[in-house]
Formats: sequence, structure tokens, C-alpha cells
Amino acid sequence: MAVVMKGIDVVNAMKEKMVREVEELKQKGINPCLAIVRVGSKPDDLSYERGAIKRCEGIGITCRVFEYDQEISQQELVKEIKNINDDKEIHGILLFRPLPKHLNEDEIKYLVSPEKDMDCMNPINAAKVFAGDSSGFAPCTPEAVIEVLDHNKIPIEGSRVVIIGRSMVVGKPLSMLLLKRNATITICHTKTKNLEETCRNADILIAAAGKARMVTGAFVSEGQVVIDVGINVDAAGNLCGDVDYDEVSKIAGYVTPVPGGVGTVTTSVLAKHVIRAASKG
Amino acid sequence: MAVVMKGIDVVNAMKEKMVREVEELKQKGINPCLAIVRVGSKPDDLSYERGAIKRCEGIGITCRVFEYDQEISQQELVKEIKNINDDKEIHGILLFRPLPKHLNEDEIKYLVSPEKDMDCMNPINAAKVFAGDSSGFAPCTPEAVIEVLDHNKIPIEGSRVVIIGRSMVVGKPLSMLLLKRNATITICHTKTKNLEETCRNADILIAAAGKARMVTGAFVSEGQVVIDVGINVDAAGNLCGDVDYDEVSKIAGYVTPVPGGVGTVTTSVLAKHVIRAASKG
Repeated sequence: MAVVMKGIDVVNAMKEKMVREVEELKQKGINPCLAIVRVGSKPDDLSYERGAIKRCEGIGITCRVFEYDQEISQQELVKEIKNINDDKEIHGILLFRPLPKHLNEDEIKYLVSPEKDMDCMNPINAAKVFAGDSSGFAPCTPEAVIEVLDHNKIPIEGSRVVIIGRSMVVGKPLSMLLLKRNATITICHTKTKNLEETCRNADILIAAAGKARMVTGAFVSEGQVVIDVGINVDAAGNLCGDVDYDEVSKIAGYVTPVPGGVGTVTTSVLAKHVIRAASKG
Repeated sequence: MAVVMKGIDVVNAMKEKMVREVEELKQKGINPCLAIVRVGSKPDDLSYERGAIKRCEGIGITCRVFEYDQEISQQELVKEIKNINDDKEIHGILLFRPLPKHLNEDEIKYLVSPEKDMDCMNPINAAKVFAGDSSGFAPCTPEAVIEVLDHNKIPIEGSRVVIIGRSMVVGKPLSMLLLKRNATITICHTKTKNLEETCRNADILIAAAGKARMVTGAFVSEGQVVIDVGINVDAAGNLCGDVDYDEVSKIAGYVTPVPGGVGTVTTSVLAKHVIRAASKG
């Protein structure tokens, strides 16, 4: 049976370090503060927000929620974000997407100050991830994958990593983060031929396709490291990943569960970003 | 023996189309114009410049060379680029890099207007390539690779492409362009294990490592498509690619020569970008 790489173990290890860092910042008179910008009140956003606040406050980071009406105008939202950009007490911004359709998200994403952009919304941060320049902020989820691998002492350099999925939220930025760590990366997707065989040849297999339990035992080889970034709801209404956990955990060497795997770590990465932004500020 | 994919055939096919497009623009009173910005006079830059001017003028595109002294100050160069950005008669800018060391290239690259940035210098264009958004300008060399593949009717969708090299000039942007075309891409580099085997498993192998003749027969399988993006000078002072052409052409199905392959096509892509910029202007 595979070793289960639980998110909570990564979270606890990260917390210990971050609590100390926040204390040091506070001794210098810096109070790390995250602005959570939310338009409307979608249940998913509210749920993530609660988790983010709990995680951040547990570390000593202040969270300020900026909630706007679903009907807010572009002009109004632009003005609000400019104010938050200019507010010296705020070090990081998390803005929930997608925005309602009447808003021009493209304008907004360029507007969020790159220095406060905690989840790689601004293309300037995306370009830095692409270029392997770590001075910007990568999106939280791919960085959470790296934290899980590092915490479990999985070697990245020289390893063959296969990623299923090519989104700008996970697949593409994760491929660049792993490339910077000297992995050999393969990006697969719906048009990939011989997908199962390609996946079996990986040292590390990362599922970020958004398709419930698509990674069956046939995708996995003995001893492989399998990371599940999917968060899906199956036909029976249960939360599940992209990996068929029951099948895969019998074959793989290491596996992350869903829930309780990578997703658990993303808000710790968010907190880490806020601390880094506050340290620079 | 492999089919030789000559750059000149691609160039001629592209030229025919572009000549018509330029004529149509001129009938509308638009004269496509490229600004070539050069600091100092490095022989490589001058050589590329001559080729670019010849290619562009052959299609009916005007080129204006802005040559600056090696010792130009940052302030002065910034002012000059702002003027070129603002000049409505100029549709595209090609700026030779690297700039001399006393200049801050990072400031300059953000300064070049994304709409006139013909070779993906501005991170806003890089972020678009990363995101698969084709509204920006990709760098010329990776796009030249795509032109070579398309001209030779090599199927990209669903094919397994292995790229050796992860630069921001070729490897990384090319991987994103191919991913957008639904290839399954693998990026290899100096830390890749089993490099030869990985390369042999590709349908299309692209060498962009900058290492003379490193791709020997052992990297290639029967019938494979091999694209050589390398431009090196060997110990004997001869121009050569990353591919050992003599060995590889006996095994591969298709191969590009060096010189006379991908490199020949880059200035045609540059011209294509100028026409596109002029059409929007």
C-alpha cells in the first residue's frame, strides 16, 4: 500500500516556521495583512475564504474581507482595487475569480499590484513563473504540490514528471516550477495519445485534469509518486479527486488523498506569500 | 535518407502570401514599417539586421534602423524607445539583445509597447504565449519551427514532441505554442536522465540546446521528424546545428539542415508580425 501524503503534515510543518516569521515581523512593527476581495457570495468562494482566514489567523496574519455586491460596476471595482493597492497596511491581495460576467476581468488582473498579487493573477507574475524568475508570486496550488513533494522528501531534480492538465491555474505553472527544479516534464491532455503508457513511465504523476477518478490503476506503475490536484464531486455527491484512490493506492509508492491532500496546503502557501510580501514591504 | 525540410521553401510560400497582404495594406494607405533598434554594432546583430531588412523589403515592408552608441545612457535609450512607441508610422519594433551591461534591460523590456513588440521581449507578450492567448506576439524562432512543421504537413495535434532546451527564446515558448496545437510536450535539459531514450520515443524531436552536434544517431528513431534550432560554430570554425546531420539524416524521416533550416524562416515570421501589427494599427 502506498504511503499517504497528508496535507495536514505539510501544513503543520509550514505553520511552525511561519509563526516564528510573523513574530519577527511584528517585532519590527510590521503586521502582515491579507485583503480578500470577493464580488458576490458564491458558496465555493465563502468556503475557501473561511479556510484562508482560519489558516492565516492561526499564524498571526490579519485578514480583511472586502465584499462587493454582485452588481458592482467595473469603474467602482477598479477604484476599490486601486485603494487596496495603495493601502500600505495591506501586503497581499486574494481576489476570487471568475468575476461576474459584466465585469472586465482582463483589466482587473493587470490592475492588481504584482507585489500584492498572492495567487498569480497579474500576467507580470505569470511571465515570471514562465521565465523561472522566482521574484514574483506563483499560483498557490502548484506551489502546494511542490511543498507536498519537498515535505515528503521526493526528489524532483532529474525525475520524470508527467502532468495531466494544462490550465493556467495548475498544469502550466506547475510544469514551469518543476522545470526550474530540474525535473523533466511532460504535459498531457485530452488529445494525448497513449496516455496510460505515458503516465506509467513517470517517476511522479500529477493529475490536474478536473475529471473524477480518471487516473485508474492502469495509469500507475509500482512505487510511483501520485499527486492528485483534482477536486470533483462524483455522481453520488461525494468529494473526490482525479485519481481513483482505491485502485491507485494499491500500486503507487506515494499518493495524496482528496480531500486532505494538496488542497489543504494551498492556504498555507497563501499565508507564506503574505509573509514574503510583508517582509519586502 | 530523411526528407530535408529547407527553410527557403517555407520562406517562399510565406512570401507569396505576405506580398499580397502588404499590397492590400498599401491600398488602404498603410505602409508597414519595422523599427530595428540596435545599441552598438555587434557583428551578429549586423548580420541578422541585414537579413531582416532584405527579407522585409522584399515583401514591401519598410525598415528603419535606429542605431545608438554603445555608451548610450539608460535615460536616453528610454526616451528614444518612448518616441518609437509613439510614432504612428512605425508598426513594429525589433530590439537587439542582450543590451550592454550598463543598461537596465529589465526596464527596457517592459517599456517596448506590447502591440509593437515583434519578438516577445515584453513580459506581457510572454504571459500571453504562456496562457495560449494568440493575441500577442510569440518570439520569432519558435514560431518559425511551427511554420516549418506546417509547411511540411507534419501533424502536430496528438503528436509526442520532445524539446531539448528550456530557454525563454526557444524551448519554453515553443512548448507552449505546440501545447496550444494539442501536441503532448516533453521538455528535456542537462539534468534529464535517459535523454537518448526519451528523444527516441518522440514523434517530433526539437533540438534547441545550443550544443554542437549533441543529437547523434542514438537520439533518433526511424522515420522521426527532427528539427534543429541550434546555431553553433564547431571547433573547425564551421557553422553547425545541435544535430549531427550526417548521422541523423540516415535514420530520421524528416530533418532541417543548419544553415538553411529554421534560422532562415525567423525573419519571415518577423515580417509576418509586422504585417499583423500594421493591420491592427
